[in-house]
Amino acid sequence: MLGPGDDAAVVGAPDGRVVVSTDLLIEGRHFRRDWSSGYDVGRKAAAQNLADVAAMGAVPTSLVVGLGVPADLPLEWLDGLTDGFRDECAVVGASVAGGDITRCDLVVIGVTALGDLGGRAPVTRSGARPGQVVAVAGRLGYAAAGWALLEAGVPENPVLEEVVVAHRRPGPPYAMGPGAAELGASAMLDVSDGLLQDLGHVAEASGVRIELDPRAFAVGEPVSVAAKELGVDPLEWVLTGGEDHALAAVFPSEVRLPPSWQVVGRVVEGEGVLVHGREIGRRGWDHFR
Amino acid sequence: MLGPGDDAAVVGAPDGRVVVSTDLLIEGRHFRRDWSSGYDVGRKAAAQNLADVAAMGAVPTSLVVGLGVPADLPLEWLDGLTDGFRDECAVVGASVAGGDITRCDLVVIGVTALGDLGGRAPVTRSGARPGQVVAVAGRLGYAAAGWALLEAGVPENPVLEEVVVAHRRPGPPYAMGPGAAELGASAMLDVSDGLLQDLGHVAEASGVRIELDPRAFAVGEPVSVAAKELGVDPLEWVLTGGEDHALAAVFPSEVRLPPSWQVVGRVVEGEGVLVHGREIGRRGWDHFR
Repeated sequence: MLGPGDDAAVVGAPDGRVVVSTDLLIEGRHFRRDWSSGYDVGRKAAAQNLADVAAMGAVPTSLVVGLGVPADLPLEWLDGLTDGFRDECAVVGASVAGGDITRCDLVVIGVTALGDLGGRAPVTRSGARPGQVVAVAGRLGYAAAGWALLEAGVPENPVLEEVVVAHRRPGPPYAMGPGAAELGASAMLDVSDGLLQDLGHVAEASGVRIELDPRAFAVGEPVSVAAKELGVDPLEWVLTGGEDHALAAVFPSEVRLPPSWQVVGRVVEGEGVLVHGREIGRRGWDHFR
Repeated sequence: MLGPGDDAAVVGAPDGRVVVSTDLLIEGRHFRRDWSSGYDVGRKAAAQNLADVAAMGAVPTSLVVGLGVPADLPLEWLDGLTDGFRDECAVVGASVAGGDITRCDLVVIGVTALGDLGGRAPVTRSGARPGQVVAVAGRLGYAAAGWALLEAGVPENPVLEEVVVAHRRPGPPYAMGPGAAELGASAMLDVSDGLLQDLGHVAEASGVRIELDPRAFAVGEPVSVAAKELGVDPLEWVLTGGEDHALAAVFPSEVRLPPSWQVVGRVVEGEGVLVHGREIGRRGWDHFR
């Protein structure tokens, strides 16, 4: 409604409530300029916040960005970043409403996304109840596979490209967020730290146990190919890899889910997240195997 | 409505629009840990964004914060920062709705403030018209005087304390923002970079000239004392000092302004900001004198 250039932007909030999510991305920690272009970083930074908004059951409406940039940052990198923000926003019909830019010795990106609930109740992490089912929409393990390939220095090639691109530009299933809310999801979040860890937040906030059946996961073909290349178990990426920003939601068992949602487990009484009936502890996946 | 702990927060936006402002503060550039406590930095970081929201004529409702912190940051500094955010929000009846924390080699603070217009039109920078008057509410030159004292290494003493505290905790006149909108202000901003520079934005956005009468400025007693201590002209701090987050607004000449607003100039046809009939150019105040 009023964009960049004033003290503040004005954004429509027809619902009378606004959903707001903020993240800080630091060069060297959340992205590497030798691995990702400015455009990719813009897409990714926008995606992770827009996905947070979608995971509440809201439709993202706008983004505001605070940028810290070194004096020697190439202008084309900054232009790419801006284009990336714009294009990722366009995917959901949102726009960049405003921002702030300042000097900093490294690239720092503060992203805040706003969204509208359209009359729906927000879908939090605390609504999972025993007897409900756990389902995921979107990709799992892709970004982790891409990161592993880049870290291992595997030369890029067409067969492996899809997971590397997934690392650079997540592509969350935004529309599934409000869609899940309409279907009656009782809890939801976006998978940013890995499915096991993120479902652990749902289990804790809801006071329940979540049991996953790893046989239920359809491991993506590109993830399998990358796993073979590196000689690892692809299921590890699927269960512990973050940054794909898939959506994980809990539904009453009677809800008829469309095929975009894959049922991967169920909610029972208790605590923690169990795979094959065993809890993945602090020592992680390797120890569990 | 829904605070920290989920993917995103939910904030009331009864107006159906939401005002949003974001800033990135970098250690060493926007604050120094040897000059300001964590608490002071929290107050100041919150204040500058809450003031941006107030300068649109809105009432601030909430703040979200993205934090980058070094591993060796003392916990009490972080606690102080959090307390500072909370206390500055409390001044306007707002609250901290959510945030994100990550590691970074230096302290980086991304602050986003939201506000509600309560049915009023946003007061932008582009509404100044010839024949109107320019007025300011709040303090001018205090923070600049405090910064100059700290930079000069003047030992802190009770007489000079007020300006040093003003540098650390600005104390913007928040309520005057929505108040100005109610009075019929046609343009407004908060003074963050210095009155001359900020009014330059109003002049440019509105396509007008602003003429200031420096004799109209009541130089604060603590600013005069600090100026005497350092042997400088206090009016320089008043006209070019930023960070007090006073509000500068343009009103139709027939509006009867309450005493909290001090008329300091008028809007005429033309461009730029003139003091004593002369424009302060890029070479700044010293050259002008």
